[in-house]
Amino acid sequence: MSIVVVGTVAFDTVETPFGRGENVLGGSATYFSTSASFFTDVSLVAVVGEDFPEEHVTFLQGRNVDTTGLQRIPGKTFHWSGRYGYDLNEAQTLDTQLNVLMDFQPELPESYRDAEYLFLANIDPDLQMKVLDQVRKPKLVACDTMNFWISSKPAALKKVLQRVDIVVINEGEARQFTGEANLVKAARQIMALGCKRLVVKRGEYGVLMFTPETVFAAPAYPLEEVFDPTGAGDTFAGGFMGYLANTGDLSEAGLRQAIIFGSVMASFNVEDFSLNRMKRLEFKEIKARFSSFKALTSFRDVAV
Amino acid sequence: MSIVVVGTVAFDTVETPFGRGENVLGGSATYFSTSASFFTDVSLVAVVGEDFPEEHVTFLQGRNVDTTGLQRIPGKTFHWSGRYGYDLNEAQTLDTQLNVLMDFQPELPESYRDAEYLFLANIDPDLQMKVLDQVRKPKLVACDTMNFWISSKPAALKKVLQRVDIVVINEGEARQFTGEANLVKAARQIMALGCKRLVVKRGEYGVLMFTPETVFAAPAYPLEEVFDPTGAGDTFAGGFMGYLANTGDLSEAGLRQAIIFGSVMASFNVEDFSLNRMKRLEFKEIKARFSSFKALTSFRDVAV
Repeated sequence: MSIVVVGTVAFDTVETPFGRGENVLGGSATYFSTSASFFTDVSLVAVVGEDFPEEHVTFLQGRNVDTTGLQRIPGKTFHWSGRYGYDLNEAQTLDTQLNVLMDFQPELPESYRDAEYLFLANIDPDLQMKVLDQVRKPKLVACDTMNFWISSKPAALKKVLQRVDIVVINEGEARQFTGEANLVKAARQIMALGCKRLVVKRGEYGVLMFTPETVFAAPAYPLEEVFDPTGAGDTFAGGFMGYLANTGDLSEAGLRQAIIFGSVMASFNVEDFSLNRMKRLEFKEIKARFSSFKALTSFRDVAV
Repeated sequence: MSIVVVGTVAFDTVETPFGRGENVLGGSATYFSTSASFFTDVSLVAVVGEDFPEEHVTFLQGRNVDTTGLQRIPGKTFHWSGRYGYDLNEAQTLDTQLNVLMDFQPELPESYRDAEYLFLANIDPDLQMKVLDQVRKPKLVACDTMNFWISSKPAALKKVLQRVDIVVINEGEARQFTGEANLVKAARQIMALGCKRLVVKRGEYGVLMFTPETVFAAPAYPLEEVFDPTGAGDTFAGGFMGYLANTGDLSEAGLRQAIIFGSVMASFNVEDFSLNRMKRLEFKEIKARFSSFKALTSFRDVAV
């Protein structure tokens, strides 16, 4: 089944200790769509300005991403600038130019409205809500957010969180949102808003998936070369949702496999700047790294 | 088989956001011995002063720890004071009074010298070396260290690392020791000194075990209540080595199980101050939590 995603399509200017990318393709919906497209069809809802090069649209279409919902309006495309130190876990935002995002009114093409899978990528929660209201009967809705919206629009964000099945959030943001230092307690508080599952992203430490009864811990893949963590979380979410939409298996076991596929996709994405690694990624590499995750985490039961 | 451990037996004064323990029982060898004693016999090499209460010795003996190698010499027992903030991953050392540790000359009782398993817990690397020299033909030697020795005695420490089979070290210390930000690269550099395996402790993020060919990732157990992380690393090492000595299985699979048992022991230890949780721990709880680790990490293979 196909996934509808709303989020940002952006220019990023990124500095890491290993290099610099200026005005490269970025944005939460871009990373998500590209990653999910390895598993399923994706329909994109986003906005760009007049300065957005056609080649980026062509790239997305080449990955079978439906760009009917990608609006192009007068003005400049959203631009994020950030820097990472040797600790690649946290980006330092240097500059955010919202530009066309300020006037974005997401309007879903009729062909999108019966989507079974919906992902509300990191964007203004008011826009997330507008998209949620336009999808008729989704089977599964997940959302992401970031510290900026937690500080600036907590009430709107809370309303979104109350209407989704799965919340995907960074560890630090889960703590920030709840004011609770213990992550297990923070997770319980967020789930109390109504979602069935909470997926906590911990950068190089992997992912925890909570339900009221269970926890699943997945490591990140230990890499010798991490060039650019930008988009790792969105790429993770794309693999996760893409695999779920591909299989339709929403059981605990199916969701755990999806967490690993998300982690696999994120592990590739950080190996190069922007979406460069995704552009040359082959499905057989994805399968091989899934097996590597199995080898990384397996241990024998014991009778003691 | 029995394990010989050299390390500190100490008084700790610890503050966490959840309480304070003053002059409570602590020390790397104390935590290690107590944890390992759930799996095998332990022979302790350490020093205390005249102020060390007999009840603590009685406690260790009650856990079948051989205290023949525990010297009592004139002066005061080693005393560490530290504090943890809400981020319980890193202790802030407030005060270190070496006291009798300054004059400690480890002398192994004859009955210790044929030990097959040796653990050099966190203590002056010169003392670690003196103990290593007195054990005739160990089957497996592992060691721990800390930032203090990395800064103050790097040459002596390096000599120890060159002679052990397994190095157990904190993530931050692996980075500090090598000056390498990427953990996988740091691990390779430390292994290049000669050890066959490197175990990197990452606090609430679990453990990575490296060999030149493989990596194993174990999560920490997600706990809703963490009261005092003091001794978690030594308790981990005690469970790890204790299980190895118990089974004698030094295969990759055996070592992975030992990592999980170490993680199980550490997860209990942080649930209360000092060794209080260890004192009331039962083996059936250890078995149950091993199963919980299985449930926490399991995912199905896929045919994609």
